[in-house]
Amino acid sequence: MESTGRPRIVIVGAGFGGLWAAKALRKADVEVEIIDRHNFHTFFPLLYQVAAAELAPGDISHPVRKIIRRQRNARFTHAEVTGLDSATSTLMTTAGVKNFDYLILAAGSTTIYYGVAGAEAHSFPLRTLEEAVRLRNHLLARFEAAEQLPADARGHELTFLIVGGGPTGVEFAGAIQELINGPLPRDHPRLSVKDARVVLVEAGERLLSVYPEKLSAYARQRLERMGVEVLLGASVEAVDEAGVDLAGGARIDSQTVVWTAGVGGPPDLSAWGLPIGRNGRVEVAPDLSVNGSDHVYVVGDSSQPGEVASPMVAQNATQQGTLAAENILRVVAGQVPHAYSYRDLGNMAVIGRNAAVVHLFGKIAFKGYLAWVMWLALHLAKLIGFRNRVAALLSWAGDYLFRDRVARLITSQPDE
Amino acid sequence: MESTGRPRIVIVGAGFGGLWAAKALRKADVEVEIIDRHNFHTFFPLLYQVAAAELAPGDISHPVRKIIRRQRNARFTHAEVTGLDSATSTLMTTAGVKNFDYLILAAGSTTIYYGVAGAEAHSFPLRTLEEAVRLRNHLLARFEAAEQLPADARGHELTFLIVGGGPTGVEFAGAIQELINGPLPRDHPRLSVKDARVVLVEAGERLLSVYPEKLSAYARQRLERMGVEVLLGASVEAVDEAGVDLAGGARIDSQTVVWTAGVGGPPDLSAWGLPIGRNGRVEVAPDLSVNGSDHVYVVGDSSQPGEVASPMVAQNATQQGTLAAENILRVVAGQVPHAYSYRDLGNMAVIGRNAAVVHLFGKIAFKGYLAWVMWLALHLAKLIGFRNRVAALLSWAGDYLFRDRVARLITSQPDE
Repeated sequence: MESTGRPRIVIVGAGFGGLWAAKALRKADVEVEIIDRHNFHTFFPLLYQVAAAELAPGDISHPVRKIIRRQRNARFTHAEVTGLDSATSTLMTTAGVKNFDYLILAAGSTTIYYGVAGAEAHSFPLRTLEEAVRLRNHLLARFEAAEQLPADARGHELTFLIVGGGPTGVEFAGAIQELINGPLPRDHPRLSVKDARVVLVEAGERLLSVYPEKLSAYARQRLERMGVEVLLGASVEAVDEAGVDLAGGARIDSQTVVWTAGVGGPPDLSAWGLPIGRNGRVEVAPDLSVNGSDHVYVVGDSSQPGEVASPMVAQNATQQGTLAAENILRVVAGQVPHAYSYRDLGNMAVIGRNAAVVHLFGKIAFKGYLAWVMWLALHLAKLIGFRNRVAALLSWAGDYLFRDRVARLITSQPDE
Repeated sequence: MESTGRPRIVIVGAGFGGLWAAKALRKADVEVEIIDRHNFHTFFPLLYQVAAAELAPGDISHPVRKIIRRQRNARFTHAEVTGLDSATSTLMTTAGVKNFDYLILAAGSTTIYYGVAGAEAHSFPLRTLEEAVRLRNHLLARFEAAEQLPADARGHELTFLIVGGGPTGVEFAGAIQELINGPLPRDHPRLSVKDARVVLVEAGERLLSVYPEKLSAYARQRLERMGVEVLLGASVEAVDEAGVDLAGGARIDSQTVVWTAGVGGPPDLSAWGLPIGRNGRVEVAPDLSVNGSDHVYVVGDSSQPGEVASPMVAQNATQQGTLAAENILRVVAGQVPHAYSYRDLGNMAVIGRNAAVVHLFGKIAFKGYLAWVMWLALHLAKLIGFRNRVAALLSWAGDYLFRDRVARLITSQPDE
């Protein structure tokens, strides 16, 4: 970056944290450089729909350059960050060394496996667009493989086991079950829907543990009515290529184990000399700065301000990204930075047709059709880009009206 | 396949030839099995638009099972064909051995390199969806890479060289040039459009050699006005990782050599004992049967009936697929099969905004805006599936009205 005398702010990551930080800087007299290893932003809350062949990958992705096109003080660099030296304010990247006056790390999260034997090697994570596409290809290929087997041998090909009863696990279990109830029987008239099993395994005593209990109970009841087997208080002890072993000795055979049970900070951060706390997240000061410096900030999933874990959701990332950017401007202006406090606007998870749970401001809880309409409207509004919105709306309308999925392409080799 | 006493017709390939053969059999008292290594049909005429980040891969792909869903006598098998034994009427596939009474091979085509040194290793083919996505990723990554270089070193990153002045080469050259003239300068304000070069190299004396000369001249003039360098009578002697050597000693440095110059029958067919003629296509009898048998037929790009090469285009494949299916029904009914003759309904190629060439029934030639509108309408009508049509229409409208491209995602690693 050429020197212009203006403060140089580098943002690592074009997820919700990074993009909202850039947005908060759009009128400031600074230089902004966003670095990401992908040239697109991924709308993470709908990732599971790509894995369930409901949306195409492009429907939930948007080029970063297009998003920041009108922001004249911002530029984008397509590169991977390989190192950080806070003392000299330098970042090592695959596109060369970058100097900064201020750094906002919005590096996201990674799947963690809590040391469960075989989990990393034999289960499918669901954190990136590539992982979602790989899971979709694998899942659809199981139905193709089952067609070649005698009826009594199809069970393990058509058992889909999801580990983790949080929002991603619940939403994905519902989405696979609807895929099985809806378009797949018409695609595969030789297979019986009854041959397929969707099993949702949760170690705790209820699904959606951050929601009020009555919403957890509703989610379980709706999933079970759709056909999902919900196992509560069930810990996965080991995963291998043919299934999982549960604590207590039970065994479930499955070619498709999806791991949504653990999320933590990205693995690189400790190597960069950052103080790592619970779950691999960086321990930051209340103003989101790190290591007692006022020029390095960590936001979003990889940031842990204070004792209470802030949730790893989009609204936490956008609030932190915005605050970190504002705090940098305060420091530049010689003002005192503000402390972060998470404002819980609400959480929602969709379970199936006409069925969702909504929990607003930590107070108002409701469920059912109205919650589902609210989920649809909000997610449509938040999807970046007119065309993405229309494409998603068309896909959802096709699914709702005709119980069809448009995105069921297997884009890898048949034997994968 | 269980035996039902009805004639079993296996179709290899779910391209235009295979799908139209299946369609022609939809009311017949036969069993149809379509085998393809992809679970989707690719609308090949728009493949170059995926490579040019104009359409998303899903816009030109459609699940085979959905296409044949209403055809009760047809089923689909997702598998690769590994061998054929005509004598015993068996097909070896990755999903087991398939017996047939009649076989329609619609196996498509492959890129051929005419022995040009380094061409296969160092150029991008453009025959499959995966190849189109790989080319798109590579092409967009060149602009990201050029951002990291000093202005005088960007030339070879931003030189795009297309070998072959047939329809694919002409359409793709126009599409890249419009990408460079349109959305990319807004995405990359630090790069100058003048840094980028699109070079179309054709060994013959004119572009689009199957069209009337005045349309060839128009295509060249339009491409040159858009900024494409058209080199006629220029043979590529060698390709390496940094560019191409032309006959006569000229050298063009380029990180992106796209090979559209040669198309031939797929490589497996000679190993299966089929008689291979020019360009790797199978020599078939006038009724499209092969080896004097009346139960194996070859259609589409891989078929060569008679002396005059039939064009490797969709309408040839659909006409041959239909005739092969009808001839099988004639043989089953004890009637005499018909001989194939290609009906040239017309050819069209788009060059850029408001510019296309159309040649109807081998007689009527026109160009310009009207030709372009006709191209749009026809391709939209032929795209399978309502949602694909709407998505393509939205993408094209965005491009036309705002000179924007929606599909510019780099889905591989930045260093690829």
